[in-house]
Amino acid sequence: MAASEGLVERLRDRVKELEEELARERAKGGGEGQSCRARIEQMSPEVTDSNPYSRLMALKRMGIVNNYEQIRSFAVAIVGVGGVGSVTAEMLTRCGIGKLLLFDYDKVELANMNRLFFQPHQAGLSKVQAAEHTLRNINPDVQFEVHNYNITTMENFQQFMDRISNGGLEEGKPVDLVLSCVDNFEARMAINTVCNELGQVWMESGVSENAVSGHIQLIIPGESACFACAPPLVVAANIDEKTLKREGVCAASLPTTMGVVAGLLVQNVLKYLLNFGTVSFYLGYNAMQDFFPSMTMKPNPQCDDKNCRKQQEEYKTKAVINPKQEVCEEAEEIVHEENDWGIELVSEVSEEELKAASGPVPDLPEGITLAYTIPNKEENSIDGETVAESEESLEELMAKMKTM
Amino acid sequence: MAASEGLVERLRDRVKELEEELARERAKGGGEGQSCRARIEQMSPEVTDSNPYSRLMALKRMGIVNNYEQIRSFAVAIVGVGGVGSVTAEMLTRCGIGKLLLFDYDKVELANMNRLFFQPHQAGLSKVQAAEHTLRNINPDVQFEVHNYNITTMENFQQFMDRISNGGLEEGKPVDLVLSCVDNFEARMAINTVCNELGQVWMESGVSENAVSGHIQLIIPGESACFACAPPLVVAANIDEKTLKREGVCAASLPTTMGVVAGLLVQNVLKYLLNFGTVSFYLGYNAMQDFFPSMTMKPNPQCDDKNCRKQQEEYKTKAVINPKQEVCEEAEEIVHEENDWGIELVSEVSEEELKAASGPVPDLPEGITLAYTIPNKEENSIDGETVAESEESLEELMAKMKTM
Repeated sequence: MAASEGLVERLRDRVKELEEELARERAKGGGEGQSCRARIEQMSPEVTDSNPYSRLMALKRMGIVNNYEQIRSFAVAIVGVGGVGSVTAEMLTRCGIGKLLLFDYDKVELANMNRLFFQPHQAGLSKVQAAEHTLRNINPDVQFEVHNYNITTMENFQQFMDRISNGGLEEGKPVDLVLSCVDNFEARMAINTVCNELGQVWMESGVSENAVSGHIQLIIPGESACFACAPPLVVAANIDEKTLKREGVCAASLPTTMGVVAGLLVQNVLKYLLNFGTVSFYLGYNAMQDFFPSMTMKPNPQCDDKNCRKQQEEYKTKAVINPKQEVCEEAEEIVHEENDWGIELVSEVSEEELKAASGPVPDLPEGITLAYTIPNKEENSIDGETVAESEESLEELMAKMKTM
Repeated sequence: MAASEGLVERLRDRVKELEEELARERAKGGGEGQSCRARIEQMSPEVTDSNPYSRLMALKRMGIVNNYEQIRSFAVAIVGVGGVGSVTAEMLTRCGIGKLLLFDYDKVELANMNRLFFQPHQAGLSKVQAAEHTLRNINPDVQFEVHNYNITTMENFQQFMDRISNGGLEEGKPVDLVLSCVDNFEARMAINTVCNELGQVWMESGVSENAVSGHIQLIIPGESACFACAPPLVVAANIDEKTLKREGVCAASLPTTMGVVAGLLVQNVLKYLLNFGTVSFYLGYNAMQDFFPSMTMKPNPQCDDKNCRKQQEEYKTKAVINPKQEVCEEAEEIVHEENDWGIELVSEVSEEELKAASGPVPDLPEGITLAYTIPNKEENSIDGETVAESEESLEELMAKMKTM
């Protein structure tokens, strides 16, 4: 009996020990959304090894940012938590953003392991849930709201629009910025439609199928070209288009290109939100040549999206300009009129390219081409009919896009 | 007795269950260097969700890389596993590099959490050990060799030189590339000394103390300027130098700038090792303006490092050029003579800057300045004496540098 009691005692101790050890391991992996550090009430500039914000608050002392702690007052929505979106989310989390809203409906696969962020043990989990666990563990001060659905279906589209309008740091207020990190046309068009309707500022990002070029783009409805104003631009990669279009073949991707695009995107998010430096309207990255074309695009007055045209009218007549837009107008001036870096980009777009594209196409710097050309609208000339067209339902619009 | 036996039985089952659960959790966190996926003998282009290499091998089908699987035949040493080095290591691990050698002597702190890679639960661990655990878990196909010491002390310096000479994929062969991701002058100078002596190709990287600029640089001993040929260049950030030099203040850092620099660095590593695209000799990143200056620097015939001068002589007289160097020469031509992107950089360095710097200073593109100027060598004019000087011991050299 005594021996048996001693054994039970030892086994109970062992169970307790293992349970504690397991809890510690789970906390490490962020398995249950627990974190290894306590929440921090206020960002401090104190220079100690235990302060996760010291290097960020140092941006104030360095004269780069006036108000770094204001980062906590912003909510950013990220659509697409893949190779670019996941790194974007991690960067904003580590920067101490107030709130992140993540939208994706994919699952983590081993085939994603050639990009940063997700790890093999997360294979099979939904991307938004796996991301939330990891991010919460990295920084428990950030609020997370995740949505595991495809925003392009009718029902989800409404829900998505509602969260962009009401999911700000304070419930009922809109988010401060929407970031598109998706990999397909439909999702970009859905984001574009929502942002034009709401007058919501957003940034687009993308990487090419051959993995060696990418871009970011700032879209201020009414002020800069929206996604429907002109065919999207891609940074040419000096390879034959035909080699990219084979069936049953997966796109190539590299952690390098995706990391650079995410870094450039979040850097511009910080500049935009915290009001420092020059925010780029369009910045490309060509990895083969280490070439970074930059430009702006005015909106198309004949844009198919009626809300884009409405925003353009409002922008023109607006007497009171909000502070955010002032920053960007200033930025535009610096890039284009007082370009003190002396960079000159030569425009060499062929006549055919200009003809093939619908609507006014901006002067394209060398090395940038259109991702595709819009089929000739023989029956839909740019007149009243086009306007009527854009008033059709989203569903009809989507159906039409899919046939393009 | 029966009840007690039943209890013992249940407790034993519980212990077994917890041990298994703990093993799974540890595997997730990479705690004991275990991974969640089996090793893969050969890289396959097969397009399945479970193939971690499908998106990389697709670079072949896309016509970007001829021989992606050759990535496994290379060994890369990374010195400094901080904000840039850790992300550099993760990217190369996910790309499936053959072997990584990591050198650092720091510990992970919560104050590092504003950069990518390390997580709060790793605080207190050595950076190289924490990195090895995470990286092994991400990709068990990569070989790791970690060194937890400061390479600038005499004894460690010898050990470091030995591992660069002999730590290749096949023991006894040199590594294929050395990457400097350190944050101080002494460590860069130690790497420079080793690489000049061994004729080892390396790449330098750095970010500014104000967090908003960075650069990468390719150094081929004898062919391009070494770190001792001229003061290092920094991308100017449009802020007053004085604000950077206050005592008792930590440097600012951002996950964005460090992520971009790591991405540009590893992209150029891939281009160099796998022989595609154009490898940049010097590429800067100014985050305030999204400006990316590019240039090359010829070596200084009066360089203080005698091994640099020796490598220059060998490079000039070499009849047989190895394939790696051919690639880079080609790259240089494209950037400078057949610059088909049309970028022009205007040089506007002041006379004073040119005078202050020792040795020939290259034409500096606008926006790039010298990190510091070397004190006037009134007693050490550029003649025989300088040559003698450079033949002093590393220790003496180090002592001298510290007084600079």
